[in-house]
Amino acid sequence: MLRSEFTNVIDLTDYGTDWWLDVVKLASDIYDAPEKYSSAAAGKVMATLFYEPSTRTQMSFQAAMLKLGGALIGFDNPATSSVAKGENLKDTTKIVSSYSDILVMRHPEEGAAKAAALTADCPIINAGDGSHLHPSQTLLDMLTLYREKGRLTDLTIGLCGDLLNGRTVHSMCNALCRFKGIRFVLISTEELGMPAYIKEMLDAAGCAYEENPSLEDAIGGLDMLYMTRVQKERFSSEAEYERLKNAYTLDPAKMAKGRDDLIVLHPLPRVDEISMDVDDDPRALYFKQAKYGLYARMALILTVLRDPKRGSELLKGEKHEGVSCPNAKCITRRERYLPKTFISRGGYLECEYCSYRQKV
Amino acid sequence: MLRSEFTNVIDLTDYGTDWWLDVVKLASDIYDAPEKYSSAAAGKVMATLFYEPSTRTQMSFQAAMLKLGGALIGFDNPATSSVAKGENLKDTTKIVSSYSDILVMRHPEEGAAKAAALTADCPIINAGDGSHLHPSQTLLDMLTLYREKGRLTDLTIGLCGDLLNGRTVHSMCNALCRFKGIRFVLISTEELGMPAYIKEMLDAAGCAYEENPSLEDAIGGLDMLYMTRVQKERFSSEAEYERLKNAYTLDPAKMAKGRDDLIVLHPLPRVDEISMDVDDDPRALYFKQAKYGLYARMALILTVLRDPKRGSELLKGEKHEGVSCPNAKCITRRERYLPKTFISRGGYLECEYCSYRQKV
Amino acid sequence: MLRSEFTNVIDLTDYGTDWWLDVVKLASDIYDAPEKYSSAAAGKVMATLFYEPSTRTQMSFQAAMLKLGGALIGFDNPATSSVAKGENLKDTTKIVSSYSDILVMRHPEEGAAKAAALTADCPIINAGDGSHLHPSQTLLDMLTLYREKGRLTDLTIGLCGDLLNGRTVHSMCNALCRFKGIRFVLISTEELGMPAYIKEMLDAAGCAYEENPSLEDAIGGLDMLYMTRVQKERFSSEAEYERLKNAYTLDPAKMAKGRDDLIVLHPLPRVDEISMDVDDDPRALYFKQAKYGLYARMALILTVLRDPKRGSELLKGEKHEGVSCPNAKCITRRERYLPKTFISRGGYLECEYCSYRQKV
Repeated sequence: MLRSEFTNVIDLTDYGTDWWLDVVKLASDIYDAPEKYSSAAAGKVMATLFYEPSTRTQMSFQAAMLKLGGALIGFDNPATSSVAKGENLKDTTKIVSSYSDILVMRHPEEGAAKAAALTADCPIINAGDGSHLHPSQTLLDMLTLYREKGRLTDLTIGLCGDLLNGRTVHSMCNALCRFKGIRFVLISTEELGMPAYIKEMLDAAGCAYEENPSLEDAIGGLDMLYMTRVQKERFSSEAEYERLKNAYTLDPAKMAKGRDDLIVLHPLPRVDEISMDVDDDPRALYFKQAKYGLYARMALILTVLRDPKRGSELLKGEKHEGVSCPNAKCITRRERYLPKTFISRGGYLECEYCSYRQKV
Repeated sequence: MLRSEFTNVIDLTDYGTDWWLDVVKLASDIYDAPEKYSSAAAGKVMATLFYEPSTRTQMSFQAAMLKLGGALIGFDNPATSSVAKGENLKDTTKIVSSYSDILVMRHPEEGAAKAAALTADCPIINAGDGSHLHPSQTLLDMLTLYREKGRLTDLTIGLCGDLLNGRTVHSMCNALCRFKGIRFVLISTEELGMPAYIKEMLDAAGCAYEENPSLEDAIGGLDMLYMTRVQKERFSSEAEYERLKNAYTLDPAKMAKGRDDLIVLHPLPRVDEISMDVDDDPRALYFKQAKYGLYARMALILTVLRDPKRGSELLKGEKHEGVSCPNAKCITRRERYLPKTFISRGGYLECEYCSYRQKV
Repeated sequence: MLRSEFTNVIDLTDYGTDWWLDVVKLASDIYDAPEKYSSAAAGKVMATLFYEPSTRTQMSFQAAMLKLGGALIGFDNPATSSVAKGENLKDTTKIVSSYSDILVMRHPEEGAAKAAALTADCPIINAGDGSHLHPSQTLLDMLTLYREKGRLTDLTIGLCGDLLNGRTVHSMCNALCRFKGIRFVLISTEELGMPAYIKEMLDAAGCAYEENPSLEDAIGGLDMLYMTRVQKERFSSEAEYERLKNAYTLDPAKMAKGRDDLIVLHPLPRVDEISMDVDDDPRALYFKQAKYGLYARMALILTVLRDPKRGSELLKGEKHEGVSCPNAKCITRRERYLPKTFISRGGYLECEYCSYRQKV
């Protein structure tokens, strides 16, 4: 087993729901009284290492650190960074972490944050590793529910759009299925439906769900509707896209069928899946949700900085002679020095970096 | 009428000359005793959203905020920012403004800052919208006069170079014509002369001006000479440029004809219109003027932060059936959701975003 | 003679060894008790003007300023900076220095920092001018020796790799040859050997050195081994590179021949010249050396800010009718307005910007 001495936030499920709730409650408290926290990170430096541009996420983390009284270094684009281009991940993160008190990393490859945490000299927060994990997004979604619905239990939640490829909705299922009385309504085309392994996870957790291809039908029964981007190129053809896109576009007519206490979220940026004339509806909470993101990240940073050496398990699995991860987006493909370890699950080996499962 | 609850600085003429003078006097006070203001913005976050690179303006605003004890987020280039590329202006500025206490925006399209202010959740300062408006430049020019000449009245001001396309000199006319005893000397070729509507504005304000194609002739009568860039491509031909460029280049020989109390300004960057051997002349104040820019921006930021919810009128005009703005650089051309409103002026409709006038 | 009123750090040899030791000791003190210095630069603004990307150096300087409680402006890439592209060095640095308390400059051309210091309105630290000088690198190497060996005297130091083109090792020779009991072992191929003028300098200083083409042979006698990058394109042929590269790669087998109190440094980034399985050897100090870089830069910034107007000599030489510097990388080639001055040394004229020597 390989541990880090630091309090890393790579995957929310490394922590229990109590820890999540502590972060959410802290975020809520910061929201109500930010001035109490305005020097909480004074004298600390946070590095934001963004190996792909994600301006909104980066600015949200940066504003969060600044509102805690901390300071910032970092880069935002591999094209303009000599470090990001020319050097292995270990050397870069080892050096930057020796300058910093906390490191926030975004990377296009899956498992990058965990790989960096193996050798870094400060705690790491994963701000998105490819389409794999993005824990602060899940925390801000929970904060939004906590503030706007008053609870994380007994909710009917519609997930609409591209459920096949949507990291955000997968994480939400994985997180909320642990709370009681959660019921999901999965709203998508057949082609873009929720992957089987997520549905198996919901079943295993005893979490109810139904599938309903019609947003118009489903909206009336929801406490919360989570919209996601539907990218044209995900459809089987241009014609198919044109035929279906209206069905999955939220507009005032569909909003009229929703309850008064419905709330509508979206991880943003949107393309066309929510029409702009929904923005002024008081149930449209996606901009407020983005604002909650600031507070969720303040709470996350503060939680780490208050107890930076809690330690965390990184690799629990084992090497298997001659086996490497076949996922082309896995960080072990580029960073060859990483120990290639896997966890055995049934007849599968799960890569400990990117979670890809291969048959044994 | 569409108002913002915030204190935006989109167009200086939204405020009266008393307000300008308050900002200029505050800037002057900060210049004399910066330490009194070193924590004035503590705990506040300013976002600089630069949709086109303008490094000097951005650094000036950033240094201003830092010298007030505030903090910074932002981006400097659409090419390296995922937000600037992929998203409408409303969503980006709505989200970033929810993280920030003040937002400074530079944009290549005219009317962009006003468009953003319609929905933003914090005050906006316009740091240049195309070739339209740049209020902090005008304030720093006024501060320079106030500090170096001791007054904003009874001055003979030479404006030299490309007066046709020069945003800076148009704004200066618009601002200073409101003070008594201002007299302009317009120094340029016929082709690059001051536009008719500016001269009409000066006439309407009862502000004296004369046109003089010779810098050499005119310089002896000036209290202040404002030089501007003359770009080769503005001339009718390369030959014309070669013939005329020396006439509009300020050099030691021409400086010798200026008075001892002349001051020379330039918005910078210069190309060749001021020769470098003028730099050591004590009347060459363009570098000091750039330094005043820091203090003008400190005063502007502080004025907004001290009273962020003064409110401001944004759209006072009306929609006209079937009418849109024909200006290709107008922000309404790209951001289709914006209400297209116009103010009727004589036989014209003036676009409320970019000020372009079309015949009815 | 042309002086600046400010305390510039362009070339370490502008200062005596006592000054270096003061900086090193201050850095060591900050390392031991950083909290004593956490507000030492409060209210100060540092500009980092990076005319070429060098992310690690820039982040090290930035973290240093932030850990002193100071604030930052700057740019990191000419491609995304309007200032860096469109303007002469004088105007840019003159303006930015009027916003700043200290300016850190990286530039691809040799002599750029000195050129900027001629007219800047605040102190300048040279963070690398082409392959010419990089004083903070030398200070951090000295700090590493001071902390890890307890002395800067009586050391046997191996320099390995490309000694012909390595700015870092040239600077180290120039610095350490001034301390007593230093002995260099120069480990490289004949083609990539130490230039004659460095060996002459060592001779003149009475500093012992020997040449040894075999790292394996030499390592056993060393107190410190300084590895440097060996770039494939420096070799006379691909075949030559393949034949020699293993000889100059540090691996566990060679480490086994080193003494227990050997320390291994590298300016980083490395390519293949240190294999990653050396990283866990306690004698491998290159990551710790990078961390010392943070403290060396804190001490350097603080030393300048404590006494910013100590003054410094910039040009001591003379113009020579019709003579300009033939070095294509010299800053005087692009910035034509600079006074072209030279120092006579024997039958040579040495350019005061880039140190290039031409025969008279």
